[in-house]
Amino acid sequence: MQEELIKEIVKKVMDTIGKSNTIPIEVSARHVHLSKEHIEKLFGRDYNMSKKKDLSQPGQFQYEERVMLIGPKGILRGVAILGPAREKTQVEISKTDAVVLGINPPVRESGNLEGSEKIYIATEKAVVEAMESVIIAKRHIHMTPEDAKKFGVEDKQLVSVKVKSDRPVVFEDVLVRVNKEYKLSMHIDFDEANASGYKEGVVGEIIFF
Amino acid sequence: MQEELIKEIVKKVMDTIGKSNTIPIEVSARHVHLSKEHIEKLFGRDYNMSKKKDLSQPGQFQYEERVMLIGPKGILRGVAILGPAREKTQVEISKTDAVVLGINPPVRESGNLEGSEKIYIATEKAVVEAMESVIIAKRHIHMTPEDAKKFGVEDKQLVSVKVKSDRPVVFEDVLVRVNKEYKLSMHIDFDEANASGYKEGVVGEIIFF
Repeated sequence: MQEELIKEIVKKVMDTIGKSNTIPIEVSARHVHLSKEHIEKLFGRDYNMSKKKDLSQPGQFQYEERVMLIGPKGILRGVAILGPAREKTQVEISKTDAVVLGINPPVRESGNLEGSEKIYIATEKAVVEAMESVIIAKRHIHMTPEDAKKFGVEDKQLVSVKVKSDRPVVFEDVLVRVNKEYKLSMHIDFDEANASGYKEGVVGEIIFF
Repeated sequence: MQEELIKEIVKKVMDTIGKSNTIPIEVSARHVHLSKEHIEKLFGRDYNMSKKKDLSQPGQFQYEERVMLIGPKGILRGVAILGPAREKTQVEISKTDAVVLGINPPVRESGNLEGSEKIYIATEKAVVEAMESVIIAKRHIHMTPEDAKKFGVEDKQLVSVKVKSDRPVVFEDVLVRVNKEYKLSMHIDFDEANASGYKEGVVGEIIFF
C-alpha cells in the first residue's frame, strides 16, 4: 500500500530529524513588562526597583516587586514584573488567567499590542489603567543565527514543534525569533504546559510536516 | 529534493483525509461521578437527586446538585456531579485544577483508578474521603462502530487529532472509544481547550502520521 510506504518514509525522516532538533522548553508564568511612566505611578517617582534574578534570555530579569491585575470578573495577585522597563506596558497571561479576570486578549507576538485588551494594574499605593496592554503570548522559540542555520529555519518563520512527554502534543504555528543575543529555548504558557504534560526536562523537536 | 517531495505527498494525503475526518470537539469541565454510597453520605439516605440536563453521550446527565473538592492546598467549589451513579467515585479535573488543589493525579482513561489521587468531597452536610478517585481524563473520542469503520480505526487505538483553530495543535495519543451507544465527539479538558485556541465550532481531524 502506498499510504503505508509514505508513513514509513515519514517516520524515518522524523526519526532522523529528531536526533538533532531538540529544543529546551521553558514555561512562562503570567508577568508584566512596565513602562517607566507606569513604574513611577505604581511605586513612586523616587522609588528604586530591586532586581530579584536574571532570566534565561540575556539582559532580561525579574524584579522583587510584584503587582496585582484587576479585571471586570477577578483579580490576580502577586504577578511578576520583568525588566528592563519597556516603552509600552505589556501584560502576558494565559487563557485560564483571562477567564479569571474576565477579559479576552488576543494571542500575539510580544510587542504587537494594537487592539489588545486593557487591564488595571495595582500596587498598595496606586492603580493604573493599562490600555492595549494584555496579550496571550504566542508560543515561540528564541534562537541564535547559528541555531537557525542548524535547524534550517529563519526569523519569523512558523514551525511545528513536537513536545516529547507522556501527553504528547505537536504545537503548530510556533514563531521562530532569531537574535545573536538569544539563548535557544522554546517558551510556552501554563495552559500549553499543562495540556502537553510538560515537566522539567521535557524537550521539543522541530518537525517539518 | 526528496524531502520536498515527501512533504508534498504528505500534504496531499492530509488534505484528502481532512475532507472526511472531521470530529466535533467538546470541552469537559471538572466533574465528579459519585458512587451510591458517597451520594448517601454526602446528601443523606433518603435524599432524591435532581436531574439538571442530559449530556451529549446518551444516558449521561448532570445533576442539579454540586459538591466541593478539598485538597491540601486549595478548594474548588460548585463542581458538577454527573449521573448515573457509578460503582466507584471518579473525579475528573484538569492539571490547572490539580495545582490549585495541591494534588498530582495521573492522566488516565476513565475507570482506570488504581494508584490515582485522593481528595475530600464535601457538601454542606458531610465530607467523604475519596481514595484513588482523582484523574486527569486522557483525551478521547467517542464513536460508533460505523464511525470507526469510516475512519479506519479500532476501539482503544491511539490516534493523532489536529485541532483546526487559530492556535493549531495536534494532540497525539488520543484514545478511540467505540460503542454503538456513543455519539461522535472528541473530549478534551480546559487546559487542552485553552492551549489549542478552542472556540465553539472548532473541529478536529484524525491524521495518520
